[in-house]
Formats: sequence, structure tokens, C-alpha cells
Amino acid sequence: MPANTIPEKFTGWAAMAKDKDLVQWSYTPKPFEEGDIDIRITHCGICGTDVHTLECGWDNTTYPIVAGHEIVGEIVRVGKNVKGLKVGQRVGVGCQSDSCGKCPECKSNKENYCREASVMTYNGVFSDGARSQGGYADYIRVPFHFAIPVPDAIDSASAAPLFCAGVTTYMPLKEAGVKKGMSVGVVGVGGLGHLGIQWAKAMGADHVTAISIDEAAKPDASELGADRYLLVNDPEQIKKANRSIDVLLVTVVSRSTNFADLVSLMNTGGKILLVGLPNGTYDGFPPWAMCERNISIITSLIGSPSNIQEMLKLAAKKKVRVWVEKRPMSDVNAALEDMRAAKAHFRYVLEN
Amino acid sequence: MPANTIPEKFTGWAAMAKDKDLVQWSYTPKPFEEGDIDIRITHCGICGTDVHTLECGWDNTTYPIVAGHEIVGEIVRVGKNVKGLKVGQRVGVGCQSDSCGKCPECKSNKENYCREASVMTYNGVFSDGARSQGGYADYIRVPFHFAIPVPDAIDSASAAPLFCAGVTTYMPLKEAGVKKGMSVGVVGVGGLGHLGIQWAKAMGADHVTAISIDEAAKPDASELGADRYLLVNDPEQIKKANRSIDVLLVTVVSRSTNFADLVSLMNTGGKILLVGLPNGTYDGFPPWAMCERNISIITSLIGSPSNIQEMLKLAAKKKVRVWVEKRPMSDVNAALEDMRAAKAHFRYVLEN
Repeated sequence: MPANTIPEKFTGWAAMAKDKDLVQWSYTPKPFEEGDIDIRITHCGICGTDVHTLECGWDNTTYPIVAGHEIVGEIVRVGKNVKGLKVGQRVGVGCQSDSCGKCPECKSNKENYCREASVMTYNGVFSDGARSQGGYADYIRVPFHFAIPVPDAIDSASAAPLFCAGVTTYMPLKEAGVKKGMSVGVVGVGGLGHLGIQWAKAMGADHVTAISIDEAAKPDASELGADRYLLVNDPEQIKKANRSIDVLLVTVVSRSTNFADLVSLMNTGGKILLVGLPNGTYDGFPPWAMCERNISIITSLIGSPSNIQEMLKLAAKKKVRVWVEKRPMSDVNAALEDMRAAKAHFRYVLEN
Repeated sequence: MPANTIPEKFTGWAAMAKDKDLVQWSYTPKPFEEGDIDIRITHCGICGTDVHTLECGWDNTTYPIVAGHEIVGEIVRVGKNVKGLKVGQRVGVGCQSDSCGKCPECKSNKENYCREASVMTYNGVFSDGARSQGGYADYIRVPFHFAIPVPDAIDSASAAPLFCAGVTTYMPLKEAGVKKGMSVGVVGVGGLGHLGIQWAKAMGADHVTAISIDEAAKPDASELGADRYLLVNDPEQIKKANRSIDVLLVTVVSRSTNFADLVSLMNTGGKILLVGLPNGTYDGFPPWAMCERNISIITSLIGSPSNIQEMLKLAAKKKVRVWVEKRPMSDVNAALEDMRAAKAHFRYVLEN
């Protein structure tokens, strides 16, 4: 596709204000720079963060906003300074679209923790002042460093959610050193959790426990590879599972999360990985119970481009697969409605 | 000292009930077993845990109770199965006096995390049913595995607090990998904190920050080796110290501890080590601020006999010294009063 057939304005499904249905909206993307690429979007996953941001749940949404940060598509234009990518190539973009490139974090392949100028894929501001808009759209323009090729073995719809849900769950498990001989637990069998179960297995964990609030996800958990299913609200089950988990990935944190119960599941030296971001603060950690078992609470945020690359390799090699339900991009409002109603099983992916 | 000159009953300073002054009390120690040793106590430090337990602050104190778990003395009797220790030797006993010896933790030199039968030096129960009584006394009888020789380079009064305050601060810093090139912070310049500052330096940290609520400890912090002094209640100072600490040892946690401020001090990947045990729960951790910097919260509990041994070696080699004020054992009530009034500078050690 020659550059001059790419529209000057991109068109996306935008929230024009809080609590409004999304409508089609045309906007001027950031000015094209020689390190940028344009991507014709074929797929975009719907993430919980999209819903929360569209609703201004963290009080920091600037409208109009086009959400979506689980993006896969085809490169249609590359700037002169782009390296390693070419027109026609299939790539994905996750939660982050730019960073300063110069701070200690960027210099050590931890761009996701950039301290100076991290730009989120939507609701962010590029260094030139342009607002970033996300993947519920026909095109997206991003600095090439934040577009990562999708391995042939993974179809585009399945690949899209890996760019956020995937790396969000992969990284803390990897950093916690999950490997053969370990017992891993995953709280929440949803968009994040169903990947957590698969990563733990792919990394070699001997035993994986899926932990949920009801029996609904039990068959799925089993199909995903979980060796055990625990009801977090059943004191008998929690008691029986005392000291049985080395690494616990917590994908859902709410006011009702009982950290004392979760700590009771842990072995000595156990690591609790929090990737669920509650409104308000994390509260209610039990000091004695934690100290007596040398427990750590570890937080993390997505992953860097190189992290995404290594995650995609593992996904391809170990056949980690996102369970997706495809929806036409034009059905975005209905899909968001279903997402809010927790009907996703486990991830909606919008298709152009 | 021949075994037959050791009294059948030991005499200690006991709280007979909650909120009572300590009085001299004679009690029968655990029956002597062939793996036990008797120690004639020369010194015992006063720890915050003593005060809290004597006051039944954790609601689990059994009276009468003799507190004290920073004990140094001379071995006066050894059982036939004792290895590596002999009569006349100078040894110390810390917070723990026995463990099951068989669980995975005990088998991997983590007796402090024993899951089956950890016996605290006071307010505990040995496997034979006898209650453990602590170091505000003339003698103590313990299984030999929990008595550790004191290096010649360290005098007995200075050695005593290392067995609790010392290992409590040494272990988390060691496990966090403190070394050359790192910036370490220590919250609280007291019995624990003044050792934390010294351990950080002894482990090679380039920069150590002492953090306190007022200016009182500033000269001490400097003498202890701190490179910087921060007032935790001064927003300007906290702001200026943004992103300047890799590992933060928190020796005091209360309802007013502001974890958001502490997190703001941390570098990406920073580790916050909690060794202060509040009443109630740890609350108020800021999810976004933590995730954006990949922050970990790590808890720990004292150390094992082998940990104490390696700590004593480092203390001797690097001249880590407890600042002690000696008090006669008979002044224990006055010393406890001064301890409650936070007058310790930094550790009272009772002397027989």
C-alpha cells in the first residue's frame, strides 16, 4: 500500500465523554516521524483497562478517547529510520507506544518502567504534544521500537491479547523464577488468569492451582492445564491447601480480597505477584503470617518490547493460546457491554 | 562448674501477670536431655518484643513469664549428645530455642521458619511440654543447636543484641542482595535501625540513608556511617529524595507509616523490607506507584543458627557494633520503664 493511500485522518470508535457509547470519530494522528510506522489494524483485544479508562475509573481520562492496546495489524508505511521492520509485515502493539529511550530503565531494556516519558498507547501524550489513540480504529501510528513482529505460528486474533494480558502475566511469573519443581497458583480464571495458568505450565511448574470465587471456571481451568481448583471462599478448601503454593499470581484484587487466606496457601519464601490494580490501596496484609513464612509481595507493570518478543517465542513454542471470541469492530459497544457483564470467555477481540 | 552445682531451679525476673512489675521467681527448667546445654547467663539485651510480650500486646502471653532473647553467657553443662560445644565456652541464644529438625525448612537451614515445632526462647512450649523461659535470669537450658559461639572479637554485652536485633536486620538485607553499587535506606534509627545502617555499609552499599521522624538521631546516624539523613514527615525532603533508594529496611511500622511516601523513595525494582510488626495489618500500599516501579515488599523473621553464625563473622570482621547501655539485671524494671519511654540509646543490656 503506497503511503499516499493512507488517510491523513484515522477513524476509530471513540468515547466523546464519560458514560457515552462509543461513536465513530476521525482524528489526526501524531505527525509522522522517520522512526514511525503506520499499521493497518486487523485485530484489537478488549482489556479491562479499556473499560476502566473509558469510564474514567482512575480519574485521568481525556476525551475524546479511542481505547484498545492489544493491537495486531499489517505495516503499511515505515519511516526512513525504522530498523528491522518492513511494509507488509504483521506486528503487534501493546500498552506502551513510546518512551524516552535515555533513562536508566530504557537503557536496560525496561522501557515499561521508563521514568521520563512513557507514552501509553491511548490516553497518553507523545513528546510532540500529540495525544495517543488506541486500537479500536482502522490505523495506528507508533515509533517502530514498540511494534513487535508476530510469529507465524500465532494467528492475529489470538496474538492480540498477548500484547497486554499476555505480557502482564508472563513477566511476573518469569521474574519470580517459575520452573520445574514449583507449585504455582493463579487467582482469577479470566482474561489474565487463563494465560497465567498456561505460562506456569509452559515454564515447567509441576503443579498449578486455579483459584476462583465459584465453580463456573472449573472445567476451563482443567482444560487450561490446572491440576487443582480451589474456591477462595471455602474455608475448608483453603485450610486443606495450607502451605501448598510457591508462587501465587493474583489477577484480581478487590476490597474483598482476603490476603490472610492467600498467605495461608503459601510455602516458606512464597512470592505473591499482584497484577490486579484495585481502586484505592492494597490493604489487609497479615504481618505475623507473612513474616513467619518469609512472604514477598511483588508488583509489576506489563513488559518491555524485548520481554514481549521473548513471550511471543514461548507462546509459539509451548502453544500458549489466548481463548478469544471474535467480534466485528462495529460491534464494539455490545462487546464492551458483554465485557462489563463478565461474559468474556476469556477475551473479546475486535476484527476489522 | 560441675553439674551438681547448677541449681535445680533457675531464678529469673518474671511478670506474674499483665501490667505487673517483674519480680524474682524460681522455676524448674525443661528436663535436661542429652542434647541440651545449660548456660550461666552473663548478659541479656532488652528487645521491643520483650516489652510487648510482657504487656500481652499480641494477646498470647502465658504468665508467669521471664522475657529476654538476646542472651550471652558461659556454658556450664553439656549433654552427651552435644556436638561442637564445651563447658566454659561463651555462647549466645536468640529468639528461637528449638525446632522440629525434620521439616523441609529445618532440613534446609531455615529453622527460623520451622513449620512444625518452633519454640521461642520465652513464651514457648518445648516438645516435652515444658514452658520456655528467657534470659532475664541466672541460667537457661536449651538444645545445643540453638546456642552459637560468640567470636572473641566481640564483647559479651555488645554481642547479646546481635542474637535478635542483629540477625533480624542482617538477614533481609543479605537476602535482598545488598552490595557495592547500591543505595540502601533504613527507616528508624533505634535498636534495629542503628544495626541496619551498619550492615548496609558492611555489605558494601555505596550510599546509606537514615530515615527518621525528627532530627534527634541525626548525629548518631552520621557516626553510624549514614551518608544522608531524611525526615520522613518533611514533604520537601521526601520529594527531593524521589527514586534514590534500591533497598529500604523498615524497622518501624505503625498506623501512621505512609507507604506511598516510602515507595516514592524507591528506584525501579526496589525492595522494601518490613521487619517492624505493627498491631493489626499492613495497610495502605499504593498499587499504581508500586507497579510503575516494580516494587517488592519482603517480610522476614529473625534468622537460623547458621545465619546467626555468618552474621557474627561479618560483625567481627567489619566491626559492626551494637551501641549498648549496660544495666544491672536487678534494675530490670527501671530499664524496661526507660525502654518504654524510648530512652534506649540504642540497646539496654542487663548484666548479671
